[in-house]
Amino acid sequence: MATALHRLDGSSEHWPGDLDSIEVPPQQLWARGRTELLAAHPRVAIVGSRGPSPYGQDQARRFASWLASRGVTIVSGLARGVDSIAHGAALDVGGDTIAVLGCGVDRPWPDGPLAEGVATRGLLLSEFEPGTPPARHHFPQRNRIISGLSVAVVVIEGAARSGSLITARWAADQGRDVFALPGRVDQPLARGCHQLLRDGAGLIEEPGELAELLGIGDPDPDTGRDEARACDAPETALLAALRGETPTARELATRLARPLTEVLAELALLELEGRVARAPGGLYRRVEHRHEHGLTGGA
Amino acid sequence: MATALHRLDGSSEHWPGDLDSIEVPPQQLWARGRTELLAAHPRVAIVGSRGPSPYGQDQARRFASWLASRGVTIVSGLARGVDSIAHGAALDVGGDTIAVLGCGVDRPWPDGPLAEGVATRGLLLSEFEPGTPPARHHFPQRNRIISGLSVAVVVIEGAARSGSLITARWAADQGRDVFALPGRVDQPLARGCHQLLRDGAGLIEEPGELAELLGIGDPDPDTGRDEARACDAPETALLAALRGETPTARELATRLARPLTEVLAELALLELEGRVARAPGGLYRRVEHRHEHGLTGGA
Repeated sequence: MATALHRLDGSSEHWPGDLDSIEVPPQQLWARGRTELLAAHPRVAIVGSRGPSPYGQDQARRFASWLASRGVTIVSGLARGVDSIAHGAALDVGGDTIAVLGCGVDRPWPDGPLAEGVATRGLLLSEFEPGTPPARHHFPQRNRIISGLSVAVVVIEGAARSGSLITARWAADQGRDVFALPGRVDQPLARGCHQLLRDGAGLIEEPGELAELLGIGDPDPDTGRDEARACDAPETALLAALRGETPTARELATRLARPLTEVLAELALLELEGRVARAPGGLYRRVEHRHEHGLTGGA
Repeated sequence: MATALHRLDGSSEHWPGDLDSIEVPPQQLWARGRTELLAAHPRVAIVGSRGPSPYGQDQARRFASWLASRGVTIVSGLARGVDSIAHGAALDVGGDTIAVLGCGVDRPWPDGPLAEGVATRGLLLSEFEPGTPPARHHFPQRNRIISGLSVAVVVIEGAARSGSLITARWAADQGRDVFALPGRVDQPLARGCHQLLRDGAGLIEEPGELAELLGIGDPDPDTGRDEARACDAPETALLAALRGETPTARELATRLARPLTEVLAELALLELEGRVARAPGGLYRRVEHRHEHGLTGGA
């Protein structure tokens, strides 16, 4: 054990107040490493399968690197797979990371260079007394601290009934945002994330989508999801007719003496391009700026 | 042109009444092939990219085959890629399919063996007069008929601003169910589907998920999503304590003289296994049957 062991409670300088509002907050925490990370914000949990696919490995690395290099502390559980990749990627970019254990911090599991790296350059954390061995029922319990410390939980990959879903559930109960990365339907490890998406988790494609939530500035143009919409196409007669007005499609068709279906089709195309938007009552308005389109009505 | 050409209007025997309730119904339809398919139900649209990935190709084939072999008519637009694969897969299993064109049915585009196969064993359909050449603005317009004829639209793959999204939008406007197949976030062809999922489309992994909506019987155990939950594990003291009662976690912990965090963790595991469910007010109840779990609270 290379680094000193600390015991924290509600009176400690770096006690994370985030945990006081969760159901059954820990009474104490044992720590090895930089306890000041418990006072630093923002924190995001990245969790997922112990045996991720190459896709899941890539995405865990990409999300953790992007966030950690922008000052976000990466929280996870030190498990093999997604957890370890996330911690490792954070350390690799010189960022901060916290590993919450289901055993004593003096005997991290799995042990090895990553655990020692986190203990030295990040933080190992546990509510279990030093010397406590890992046990199956410790892990779901420790997961509530992973989510409780975090503004948001991102699930990268997980089977249908995996531990990551437990973390996501704690997160939802704790009022944290839950995001799930979609994947191929023929990949069993995508099932857990798809279940979360069905249950209301946010679909996430790019780490930059978290930028606003985390208050870390504008999305990186290289990785942010938001794209400039095509606003440089020539002005059509239809767009001109929308200048300063919000007519219905039928009114537009009459004014332009064109078949209604054609007008509706052109409006649909322009809407996809972000150049027109629909208002309640079947009205259409022109959009002059960058704009997120939405599927009005939904499924 | 091997098959006869028919003109249908609202007075025709096989006129599809589904179209009368959409915005701007077609006044007439031109048809080549089995017009009785316009009276057959249920119908599902399968649409997507003109240049799908191998994954998209596989899924288009899988969804169309599964549905067509159970009596569902596959509706699409005859375009290269997902559309063509869906029509072809339906014909391959001896099923029914309708291709809605953006040109005259006497000069289908693209022309070739598939178009002739659909004209002979399925149905080519268009609101455009015979002889009409394909034109860019015909396609969004024709898409409203694809969705209008269908109970549900399944989008397999599509880029961020692709025509499939227009079909999905018509479908939503028409009160049809919209489903999107998720994919990898590093695959640009998944962007369109992910946008639909963000906007409220249903996430779909298996064609069997449509069985109930379509009234085609129980999901096929091989491809239906619903899995029997693990209900054969031994009864724990905690499960026994839930027999006939709906206590809170805190009451359970007191009764069993166990730490609350441990009880919460075991409940979370049992919930994932579908053996307990949560009721409002923090109450837990035992589940005795197959059960879909959900992420209470959501993101």
